[in-house]
Amino acid sequence: MSATIDFYFDFSSSYSYLALPGIAKLADDLDATFNWKPIVLGAIFQSMGHAPPDPDTAKGRYVWHDVERTADLAGLPYRWPKPFPFNGITASRIFWYLADSDLDRAAEWARAVFHASFGEGRDCSNPAVLGEVAAAMGQNADTLLAAAADGAVKAKLKDVTSEAMRRGVFGAPTFFVGDEMFWGGDRLGQLEQFVRGE
Amino acid sequence: MSATIDFYFDFSSSYSYLALPGIAKLADDLDATFNWKPIVLGAIFQSMGHAPPDPDTAKGRYVWHDVERTADLAGLPYRWPKPFPFNGITASRIFWYLADSDLDRAAEWARAVFHASFGEGRDCSNPAVLGEVAAAMGQNADTLLAAAADGAVKAKLKDVTSEAMRRGVFGAPTFFVGDEMFWGGDRLGQLEQFVRGE
Repeated sequence: MSATIDFYFDFSSSYSYLALPGIAKLADDLDATFNWKPIVLGAIFQSMGHAPPDPDTAKGRYVWHDVERTADLAGLPYRWPKPFPFNGITASRIFWYLADSDLDRAAEWARAVFHASFGEGRDCSNPAVLGEVAAAMGQNADTLLAAAADGAVKAKLKDVTSEAMRRGVFGAPTFFVGDEMFWGGDRLGQLEQFVRGE
Repeated sequence: MSATIDFYFDFSSSYSYLALPGIAKLADDLDATFNWKPIVLGAIFQSMGHAPPDPDTAKGRYVWHDVERTADLAGLPYRWPKPFPFNGITASRIFWYLADSDLDRAAEWARAVFHASFGEGRDCSNPAVLGEVAAAMGQNADTLLAAAADGAVKAKLKDVTSEAMRRGVFGAPTFFVGDEMFWGGDRLGQLEQFVRGE
């Protein structure tokens, strides 16, 4: 049993962070390879006329609580980053720079940024914070931050965001097994059933 | 271990139908009592400016597929009622008429309407179809359909819909354990954890 799963996410997506333990478990259980694919979800929302839930509505209040409760019941540390939502574009560009030479290193970067953002509540829109995350990984902070300004890296992030939109992505996290799409960490159980052919 | 769980739903809600096996299992596993509460979700959507997902959008297409896949993976019969969405107000009023004297009979009615709608694809906005569902339950169809026009029964459905909105309901199915709210059948696992105090 092995599978390749595309995993589209935005660094500012709480539910993407909350899906990480399920992803790690599934990678083991299915001997699956996850292709981590950060995108700019805000650009997709904008083109679709969507918006993140407004915290002053019934749905917004519920979603905020649901995020905290989901973390709590899973025993996962959770702190709202300030500001929230935040701009994850620099973190995403650095991911794609790293991915060009080392996919595992890029995934390690993604996990580290998620942990700093939602595990520790740090502001990962701030280059200084990203520099510290890079340094803690043993990476050269200046090199990574400079790479985020590179034209090819910027283009890659735009391309993957366009690719996601073409495939029907409208939220995060979103997973694909071939053309079969699953939206939300709470569909990982169905994804597993699907892969196992049950 | 026992618990009382309020269960708000709309007869036209696919995800409410899909939650029924999970509800039955939880009722057994937790020795829980579910208070079935049909509401007019359309009235809540209207007051909030929400709309059901448009099938011509990326999200709408995904949701349609997700409903079918969820039924398929659960081994649950599923047919889209025609029309869909449909007006569940008469079915809901009959529920509340039955609930006034016999809660179990009312829940049996709800399961029968859901099965006719989504298991068989029948049009449960049609009084003739509801009459057949009533007769198959051994109920007098004329009595039930006449009751749906009763002022007190109509008022009850409005009251419960208002109650749901006051408690923060914005979609269906929605569950409450005391004041703790859970939206969606895919949160029944968390609801169980919550009740067990895990």
